[in-house]
Amino acid sequence: MLVSLTGTGPLYQQIYRSLRNAILTGRLRSGDRLPVTRTLAAGLDVSRNVVLIAYEQLIAEGYAVGRAGSGTFVAAAIPDSMLNVSSIRGVPAFQHHTATARLSAYARRILSEAEADLPTPPAVRIRYDFTYYRASTADFPADLWRRLLARRLRTLDLEYSPARGDATLRTEISAYLRRARAVESTPDQILLVNGSQQALDLISRVLIDPGDSVVIEAAHYSGAREAFRAAGARLLAVPLDRHGLVTSRLPRGPRIRLAYVTPSHQLPTGAILPLDRRLELLAWAGRTGAYVLEDDYDGEYRYEGRPLEAVQALDRDGRVIYTGTFSRILFPSLRMGYVVMPPSLAPVLTRAKWVADRHTSLVQQGALADFLREGHLERTVRRAQVRNAARRAALLRAIEKHFGDDVEVFGAGTGVHVLVHFRHIPAGHAEALVARAAAAGVRVYSSASYYLRPPDRCELVLGYGAMTEREIAAGIRALQSAIF
Amino acid sequence: MLVSLTGTGPLYQQIYRSLRNAILTGRLRSGDRLPVTRTLAAGLDVSRNVVLIAYEQLIAEGYAVGRAGSGTFVAAAIPDSMLNVSSIRGVPAFQHHTATARLSAYARRILSEAEADLPTPPAVRIRYDFTYYRASTADFPADLWRRLLARRLRTLDLEYSPARGDATLRTEISAYLRRARAVESTPDQILLVNGSQQALDLISRVLIDPGDSVVIEAAHYSGAREAFRAAGARLLAVPLDRHGLVTSRLPRGPRIRLAYVTPSHQLPTGAILPLDRRLELLAWAGRTGAYVLEDDYDGEYRYEGRPLEAVQALDRDGRVIYTGTFSRILFPSLRMGYVVMPPSLAPVLTRAKWVADRHTSLVQQGALADFLREGHLERTVRRAQVRNAARRAALLRAIEKHFGDDVEVFGAGTGVHVLVHFRHIPAGHAEALVARAAAAGVRVYSSASYYLRPPDRCELVLGYGAMTEREIAAGIRALQSAIF
Repeated sequence: MLVSLTGTGPLYQQIYRSLRNAILTGRLRSGDRLPVTRTLAAGLDVSRNVVLIAYEQLIAEGYAVGRAGSGTFVAAAIPDSMLNVSSIRGVPAFQHHTATARLSAYARRILSEAEADLPTPPAVRIRYDFTYYRASTADFPADLWRRLLARRLRTLDLEYSPARGDATLRTEISAYLRRARAVESTPDQILLVNGSQQALDLISRVLIDPGDSVVIEAAHYSGAREAFRAAGARLLAVPLDRHGLVTSRLPRGPRIRLAYVTPSHQLPTGAILPLDRRLELLAWAGRTGAYVLEDDYDGEYRYEGRPLEAVQALDRDGRVIYTGTFSRILFPSLRMGYVVMPPSLAPVLTRAKWVADRHTSLVQQGALADFLREGHLERTVRRAQVRNAARRAALLRAIEKHFGDDVEVFGAGTGVHVLVHFRHIPAGHAEALVARAAAAGVRVYSSASYYLRPPDRCELVLGYGAMTEREIAAGIRALQSAIF
Repeated sequence: MLVSLTGTGPLYQQIYRSLRNAILTGRLRSGDRLPVTRTLAAGLDVSRNVVLIAYEQLIAEGYAVGRAGSGTFVAAAIPDSMLNVSSIRGVPAFQHHTATARLSAYARRILSEAEADLPTPPAVRIRYDFTYYRASTADFPADLWRRLLARRLRTLDLEYSPARGDATLRTEISAYLRRARAVESTPDQILLVNGSQQALDLISRVLIDPGDSVVIEAAHYSGAREAFRAAGARLLAVPLDRHGLVTSRLPRGPRIRLAYVTPSHQLPTGAILPLDRRLELLAWAGRTGAYVLEDDYDGEYRYEGRPLEAVQALDRDGRVIYTGTFSRILFPSLRMGYVVMPPSLAPVLTRAKWVADRHTSLVQQGALADFLREGHLERTVRRAQVRNAARRAALLRAIEKHFGDDVEVFGAGTGVHVLVHFRHIPAGHAEALVARAAAAGVRVYSSASYYLRPPDRCELVLGYGAMTEREIAAGIRALQSAIF
């Protein structure tokens, strides 16, 4: 049978598709007459109107022509060379034969360098996840957030917004950063981005040509490395010590465009960069003509003393690009972060955002502005700080109890993770520890993914922001049994 | 007075900043003694505790040291070379002196080529806006949308999602495109993007190296041109006639990566590409090794006959990248669009999205999936189609009445805009018409921004999707008085 009812959709579409396939695969050729509508309708047990609609569409699209009084015929205008005459009856004609892709240099870089997507979840059930990249959803006032969002939905602006984002929200972010981090900015220096990954991407695009150099800390956030390498950067790693970046080792060179740093809480070692090194970093940037990209990913939490102000607050030359995110305080799927652009880069970064995706979706911007203006962000941070201090104490207690002198703990002063160095386990065994822990239902993270070159010590990164104290204690006990 | 209370924030912060400024500008030098806390507190009329907190922070940050029993002193560790000793008392020390930016080739391209941001609104009050890039917000079921969003907020997923987007939404989009546009895809071929601009940007990044060529229609959407030029593409314009792209004029060449086309409704001429040219385009792509980027920006509306199926539906080799957006059917600030990725590009485009911004915000994805699954999208389109048909009739009537044979109208068969050619007005006068119309409160759009080279005719683009019939009639009358 030439025409069959298969597939989905209205009957006329099924008939249309069946005939179109017959034409495109050469079973019906130019000039062939299509079945008489009445006969076809009877054969398929459908109304004649259904067949007429299908024929009408074939005619409208140029597959067929109607000749008054004599029926419908396959059009002559379909060039034979376009038709897959070699295809065999019964084989679906519209299979995709994968074209071979000739990709850009950018594409080849990201295929070889970047993570594919979300990491695959482990096969065994994880009871204790020492994740470090997110806060506890229990600390986030979800009901309040929904209420603020719902309120703003009533007056949602449906029009395009400026590339930088909603002016009210930018004003609130500028004021918040001044209060909380001493970051000086005007609202026009604020650029709303879809999380800090977009900040890294846009900054890389406007500053880095393939072959240019970017200075990074010897251990660093892998998403940043990904963005710089995608842009074709050579990475120059600077050593870290217990105070963070060893600024006396900052390199010289003609094509250094950027230094990416985490001075508030070095990721992953947790070091807090002291004042003299902050000033030295700025002086180096001025001499080198490089920008400093300060990623203040969790500057909000500090357990000993007051938080240090941001490096941006010390910058007199507009050399610091400051970036932060709301994902860690609120929730990851929010996808909202910001860049404080130095005046020299504000026009080009704004334009890069416009070319990349016009502007960040407005739906949440009003709610976030309210969240900031009404003081909810600071309340959320304070509440989380109290909870995180208790979690941190539980973690340090459990580590002391179960591991004692076998380990050394770094970076407990701020943030929501620590770095644990296993003194008596050789470097290179961290992955094995991770696997053994996972088999026992404990998810921990090797520090290796943070390094450009394999680290020379066995280290695990343990986040504690997403667990209860009881889970932390039980998790460390389970980790100890799994490892030793 | 060395210390003054100025600026915003808590009192202790004002004191802290004032002293820090004094240190960094050299008014206080290493070893200098800070004022006695009791004296300073009395002088400023604040409690002594406030001063103590400020001093504590200066010590914590390394600006000062406390010596038991003898007071607080400026630290020795601040290298003199870091300090701006030449700054004059009274001049704010933390002014940003704009650094000179050394920008990437990409940055230089977007600064010279791309639109800065939203176009500036005209100075006079516009009563009739013949905008072409958005639908009427009156046609959009805003209350329903808010209800769907609010319902999904209750179960909002706070975690990261895969780069491609929510699986439920991708399944719904794949099914919708099959029903509505005969586009064949699996949900894994769907990539959620932040509006079609991000689709253009990601596709450009993975396919185009600087110096590569991109084929475009002689007149085309300027946002696409922007994205291709940002990627460093040479643009090869192919002529248009009343049937759209003249496929016999498609160029040959070694570095042609992509042809960007709008076959459903050529933007701006409104031509519908006939079947034989669609097939010829695909054959050309196969021979050339280029991809076809089919932008189906308003394929939903057709007033005469049935909509043609997408070119993607004819593609047997996986050469077509299909993209569409929900901004025109729903609303612009939504920032949600999709790409149907051919299998050969799915891995690299997914990775490019991950590197660019991880994934599109989840907040609206569930609501949009519901909107599709419950049939609201098709209902919205059907309702808008009825309304747009009435608007279109009003527009054509008004043009006929007020301009008659002075103009020729193109592209009225589909979509929500027409191209009006003024027969007796010389090419190059379109901008003057736009200005005269604006002065009379009527916003119309010159076709010039769509062309690579200035067009050889005087043409205006008139959108009618966002106005009432009465406004359309009055607007065309006002346009006639303004022009003639």
